[in-house]
Parts: sequence; C-alpha cells; structure tokens
Amino acid sequence: MVLAVIGVGLVGGSVAIAARERLGATVRAYDGVEGVVALAAQRGAVDVACSSIEEALEGAEIAVVATPVGALSQTLLAVLAAASPDCAVTDVGSTKRLVVEAISDPRFIGGHPLAGAETAGVQNARGDLFDDATWYLTPTSKTDGMLFERVHRMIVALGARPASIEAANHDRVMADVSHLPHILANVLVGQAAASLADDGQPIPATGPSFRAATRVAGANSAIWTDIYLSNAEALVEEVDGVIARLQTTRDALASRDGAQLTAWNDRAAADRRRLLEVRTPAGAVQELRVAVPNRAGVVAEVALALGRAGIDIVDMALYPSTDMRDGVIALWIAGEAPTQEAARLMVELGFPASPA
Amino acid sequence: MVLAVIGVGLVGGSVAIAARERLGATVRAYDGVEGVVALAAQRGAVDVACSSIEEALEGAEIAVVATPVGALSQTLLAVLAAASPDCAVTDVGSTKRLVVEAISDPRFIGGHPLAGAETAGVQNARGDLFDDATWYLTPTSKTDGMLFERVHRMIVALGARPASIEAANHDRVMADVSHLPHILANVLVGQAAASLADDGQPIPATGPSFRAATRVAGANSAIWTDIYLSNAEALVEEVDGVIARLQTTRDALASRDGAQLTAWNDRAAADRRRLLEVRTPAGAVQELRVAVPNRAGVVAEVALALGRAGIDIVDMALYPSTDMRDGVIALWIAGEAPTQEAARLMVELGFPASPA
Repeated sequence: MVLAVIGVGLVGGSVAIAARERLGATVRAYDGVEGVVALAAQRGAVDVACSSIEEALEGAEIAVVATPVGALSQTLLAVLAAASPDCAVTDVGSTKRLVVEAISDPRFIGGHPLAGAETAGVQNARGDLFDDATWYLTPTSKTDGMLFERVHRMIVALGARPASIEAANHDRVMADVSHLPHILANVLVGQAAASLADDGQPIPATGPSFRAATRVAGANSAIWTDIYLSNAEALVEEVDGVIARLQTTRDALASRDGAQLTAWNDRAAADRRRLLEVRTPAGAVQELRVAVPNRAGVVAEVALALGRAGIDIVDMALYPSTDMRDGVIALWIAGEAPTQEAARLMVELGFPASPA
Repeated sequence: MVLAVIGVGLVGGSVAIAARERLGATVRAYDGVEGVVALAAQRGAVDVACSSIEEALEGAEIAVVATPVGALSQTLLAVLAAASPDCAVTDVGSTKRLVVEAISDPRFIGGHPLAGAETAGVQNARGDLFDDATWYLTPTSKTDGMLFERVHRMIVALGARPASIEAANHDRVMADVSHLPHILANVLVGQAAASLADDGQPIPATGPSFRAATRVAGANSAIWTDIYLSNAEALVEEVDGVIARLQTTRDALASRDGAQLTAWNDRAAADRRRLLEVRTPAGAVQELRVAVPNRAGVVAEVALALGRAGIDIVDMALYPSTDMRDGVIALWIAGEAPTQEAARLMVELGFPASPA
C-alpha cells in the first residue's frame, strides 16, 4: 500500500509511523515547511521525502492531509488535483463542515482523529497515538463507497475506532465537548483577572476548582484561532445558549431563588454523570451482511445510521454483485446486542440484513 | 485554653483536633445534629460533649462556629448571647459579607479557612487539615483588637496562614476563584447535555478538556445552594461580567474576526499565568513594631492594610501602654522586603514603625 502524507506534524507523522509499522505501507510525504519532511525521513517516520504534493501523490492509494485547519480546503483541492482517480483523500482537521461543503469530490472523505491535540511536531509522533481513539469520518451521499471502505479499514489498522457522523453534527459535538470549554476557560480567567485586579490583592494561592476550570485557557493561538474560525457558526449558537443559561442562573441569584438553584445544580450533577458515562465493553465481534442497491451514497447512509446509534463498525467489506446492480456490505460489529440493533436499523433503511 | 466548637463536621472537628494537639486546648463542643458530638468525643476530637450552645460556651476564651452557611447568622447571635464578655467568637463560613453586616458585636471576627471543602463529616476530620492553608479573617472598625489578636494567634497555631481582608472583598475573591467556576461548569454541562441530546448520538468517550472544565459541576446542593445564596450579590455582578465577555467573543466569532480572537486568546494565556503565579517563599521572619493610638478599629486597620498588600502576618502581639492612650503592635513578618514594605505602609497610615 502506498500512502501519501501531506503535512508531517504530530498527527501526520504518527499516521505515517503507524501505517509503516502496522500496514507495511510505503509512505511518501510532503510538508510545506522547509526541512520538516527531511527530519521525518531521518527519524524513520516516512519512506520517501518529497518536494511537492504532486511527487508525494505518485502511485498513492490513500492521501492523508494533516495540515493546520486554516488553509485546509485549498490544500485538499491541490491534493485531489494531483491524486489518481482511484486514490482516496482524507484529512484530520478538528472541524469538518467547511471542508466538506467546499469539496464535493467523491474521492474525499473528511476525517478527525480525537488524539494528540496538545503536543506538536513530528518529534512527538508515535505509532500508537491512535490506539482506541475515536476517529470521526464524515461521508456524504457523494462519497465513493469503495474509497470510504479503504479509508475505514486503514483507520482500523492504525488502531483507532472509526465512527461516521454528519459533518455539521461533528462540529456541534466538538463545539460542546472541546471548543466551548476553551471559550469558557478564557472568559473565566479574563473575568477573574479584571475583577481581582481592582483591589490589588494577591490571588489566594489555593483554588483547585479555578485551576481545573481554567486548565485549557489560552491554548496555542496558532492552532486555536483557526479552530474557532472554522467552527464559528456552531460556536455562535452554543455561546448564545450559554448566555441564555447564565441569564437564567443570574435571575435565580438576583431573586434569591434557592429552590431553582438547587434544581439547577442537581440537574448539572445528573447531566455530568450521563455525559461522562463510559460505554460498556461490547463483547465479541459479529459479522452482519447487508444487501444494498449499488447506488451512490449507500455506504455513507449505512455508516452514518450506525454512527448515529453509537454502533462501532470494527471492520467492513464491500461485495458488489457481478451485474453491478446491487451488492452486499459485510460489517463486523462488537457485541451481540449492537449487532442485532444494527440489523434492525438496516431493515428500517430498506436493506435486508442477516448475521453471517 | 478553653475552646468552644459549635458544629463538629469536617472543619469544626479538624479545628478541635488541631487545637487539642497543638495548643493543648480543652475543647467543649456542641452540634445541632443528634449524635454527632458524641461521635466526635468517641473519636477523641473533643474533650467535653455538650448538649447546648450555653453549656459549650462555659469558660470558653474562643468560640469557633462551624455550622453550614444557611443558618450561620442566627447561630452566631446565639453563641454571642451565651459567650462571656471576654470571649472571641469566629466562624468558618465560605462567604462573609452577610454575617459581618448582620453582626456588629466587637467580639465577633469573621473567618474562612480555605481547606476541606470537598469532603464532609467529623469522620474525615484531622489535625493537619489547615497546614499552610490561607485562613481569611474579616475584622472591622468595631472589632476588639485584643480578641482579634487571640483568634489570629490560634489560627497560626493551627498551622494556617491568616490573611485579613474586608468581607465584601473576600466574597468577590471567592466568587471569582471558586463560585463562578462552579456556575460555569454547571452551565457547560447543561448546554452540552441539551445540545447533544438533540441527535441522540453518544458523547465521544474522550474529552479531557470537557472533563476538566466540568469537574466541579453539580457539587453537593446541600452545601452549594447556601453558598450561592449567601454570595448572590457578588455573583450577580460576576455573572453579568461573564455574559458581557461572552457577548464580545460571540460577536468576534460571528464576524469571523481572527485578529480579535487571537488577541483575546493570548490575553487569556497571560492572565492565567498571572493568576496562578505562586508567591515566592518570603525568607526569615522579622519583627516590626508599630506605635498605634489605642482606639477601636486600629488593629483591623493594620491587619487589613497588610492583607491588601499580600503581606502575611506570621504572628502578632499587642502591648497597650499603661495609660491606655496608645500602644504598640508587634508584628512578625516573613522576609526582609515584605517587612520593609509593611513598615512603609504603617508610616503611610500615620503609625511610626521600626524593625525590632
């Protein structure tokens, strides 16, 4: 397997190392920053250090674009222009809606591994970075099913758990669980700094809740300004929601409404438990065969339905029929109950499904 | 020394144990909840289990009220009614403005140790709970200087570092570094729960920033509703400040203003560093003698001026002159520079000061 990696930082470098170690892939790499790809080759992360996107894409079956979010769409378009008609192109950007809307090429599958956001550079890259990490994929009705399967399979081989999700949903989830916490941490330190500077008193040395709540305040602007901008639409909505909630709490405080404050606080305890509940281990892997019409978008439809239900596709394979009119998707799913639920969902979509 | 402890939970119990171990105090205790004071006696935390506030106050030189914030003012008034004219009365409540405004008795000195907020019960009490903890005191112009000195000295003996602060300032500081982080954590989980419930997708298992930002969400309502209510005035102001800041950030997002977002994010990084800077160790303890007029409030004036400047009073002693018209306050302060700064501040207040 020939893999092209465009952008060899922490994530791109780790993809390269894992693909060489676990897939025996030949990795051809390019990085826009002078010297980076040579350093990556020197560290044994890549096989061929290339001096252009075109050179890196020669003979590639998959291209992974791992550049910063800011110029992602342009880079992806350049990669797609250089890629062969049978090459799958994916990325690892933290937000997905903008790139997925900008690129309608059936060879493109948006991706986002939840790993390694806080360190940087190929010098920190490692082959086990994605072990057990959720790796979002955002297929659409235009996505080529065979190329989706190829990317899905590579991600499983890299050690991650692929999960399919609509791009806009992805961005809303990330707004809630990652971007909004960063915004609130920034706002909290700003408020505390301004309010406490008034009287010139030193801040009390202790304050574990303050330290925890502001741990991510002022994260690297070189990365985060682009993330905020690329997810601005979802974030504006989420911030509006937070402002409305704060207003309600503020009014309960102003009217000294203890019952409302208690109900609000108890609800927060219940919500947190629910949000942080860990999924139970699912059990042994089962195979499910799904008969599908051979039309554009059907693989995305299947993957997204299972992603929405929280069902992990451990592996998948496509078997188009000889007349190319319909085919079978074989899905491997962990646990008997999730497999039965998956079968039910497939039937609901109109696709006959049965355990193998 | 006879110490009365009213309310023998985690903090009251720890005060009792530390006072017995480190001051050789005789501790007389009362708790409004049936059986608690007997349990405390059985655990060796107190010497005399009493069945009323009046009984606990018999012969006491200091009374520490460590009951929940909700009924604190009433309990303090009952304790002051039972206390001798020469007994100092202090409390350990998390907010100070309401009690300090409600009680003008010169024997009362508001207090708040920053320790042990997250566990509860005399079964978790221990003698070293206050070691190196900041212990706020809120003397006023009505506070009896001799009784303030007595409480200050006891707190030093318990292992804590007393710091004097105006009650309203105290509540604002606590709003910023403790109560506001709790409110934002609650709001964040509420927003995420509502937003993510829309699509029925399971929350991604990973999310270190979300877990950190919501660590204190939904803290024990039995404690926190009272804290929110007793600090409602400061909190309404702080929440209004946060709403205004969020609105600014929201507008920067809506107008895709990358430069503003970067400046805001960089400022947050700088603010956080500044807020979490640890004070440098101050050096050897120096004695400073301050000549003061013998009038009400002068000890509070001295203590608050040093508290505002962040100067720790390691120990203090009052020496009224024989004609009772003026006197000397001896202060022990850690470090040469802070001692010189303290001397300068005293001269600024009109009190001649010189190193001993």
